[in-house]
Amino acid sequence: MKVYLAGPDVFLPEAAAMAAEKKRLCALHGLEGVFPTDPRPDPAADAAAEAWYAIYLRNEAHIRACDALVANLTPFRGPSADAGTVYELGFMRALGRPVLGYSNAAADFASRTRHFLGPEARRNEAGRWVDGEGLALEEFGLADNLMIDGGIRAAAGLLVRRDVPEAARWTDLAGFEACLQALARLRQGG
Amino acid sequence: MKVYLAGPDVFLPEAAAMAAEKKRLCALHGLEGVFPTDPRPDPAADAAAEAWYAIYLRNEAHIRACDALVANLTPFRGPSADAGTVYELGFMRALGRPVLGYSNAAADFASRTRHFLGPEARRNEAGRWVDGEGLALEEFGLADNLMIDGGIRAAAGLLVRRDVPEAARWTDLAGFEACLQALARLRQGG
Repeated sequence: MKVYLAGPDVFLPEAAAMAAEKKRLCALHGLEGVFPTDPRPDPAADAAAEAWYAIYLRNEAHIRACDALVANLTPFRGPSADAGTVYELGFMRALGRPVLGYSNAAADFASRTRHFLGPEARRNEAGRWVDGEGLALEEFGLADNLMIDGGIRAAAGLLVRRDVPEAARWTDLAGFEACLQALARLRQGG
Repeated sequence: MKVYLAGPDVFLPEAAAMAAEKKRLCALHGLEGVFPTDPRPDPAADAAAEAWYAIYLRNEAHIRACDALVANLTPFRGPSADAGTVYELGFMRALGRPVLGYSNAAADFASRTRHFLGPEARRNEAGRWVDGEGLALEEFGLADNLMIDGGIRAAAGLLVRRDVPEAARWTDLAGFEACLQALARLRQGG
């Protein structure tokens, strides 16, 4: 079973080491990890594209060739997960294959958003939280925007939320491993 | 042609008025707009689900029933677009249908991210921009994360970036209209 390893891990200074470690953990669970930066089977397909678009085409081809996706949904430069990762999650859900995710932040989306907004967050006349421009906050106790939590549930996946010390939030892989265990069980029909 | 109207517009205090206006503009171009909060043809399907999950299932059903998607990609609480919108964009791209988007911010993703990070943004030894934790910034001159720009290009869509005064960024629909015009041309095979 090939697993696409979505996440902002590609932006880490030690991205290659993280790729190797995630693949090692996949192999321990009988899974084959595919990191976004892995070369394509047919690299010639990218030759004509601009650099950034070649990356897009490669990632899309990787996702299509994988049987499942595990996303690092740790909040990235704002209350939500990395936008590229979220795009890939929606893409794989539409293909009807298992999607799982982990976040190294346990606080729910509403409280993270209020923290992000700071003093501009306020309650409106109806008692609902809104931002400084009056746009509502989602208050469902979820990990992120409901499309993310919902997509994972609809795909019969798992979304692991763990409270991880700030300094370890890009390297702690306990949530990732929990996803792999769930995927290995799913694969065995367990 | 049914068009799913993705965007954080659902969070606006006047979301219903925005839905009506977007649908009116769609109709002017011979298109049928579907707003995320529109009721489902079969609302009984949502009865058993929790409130948030019923919303997810409804939105997913709307997207599957639409022929194209136009996304409001105006930066939302951080350098990137709203996470739910980005999920839906990836979802529709995977279905192989046209996806288009507009952003009422003309500045590119890298400069918006540097502005968001403030003094923690710095150049590493290789001269590349990174954040305070050393994670790289994408510097391609794009509107957002390359998966977003790439998905729209791969779908033969249009991504409109316009510089709109801050106070009008949630209500200005010129970019939206440009997407509708492109979609109407696409529909006519033009």
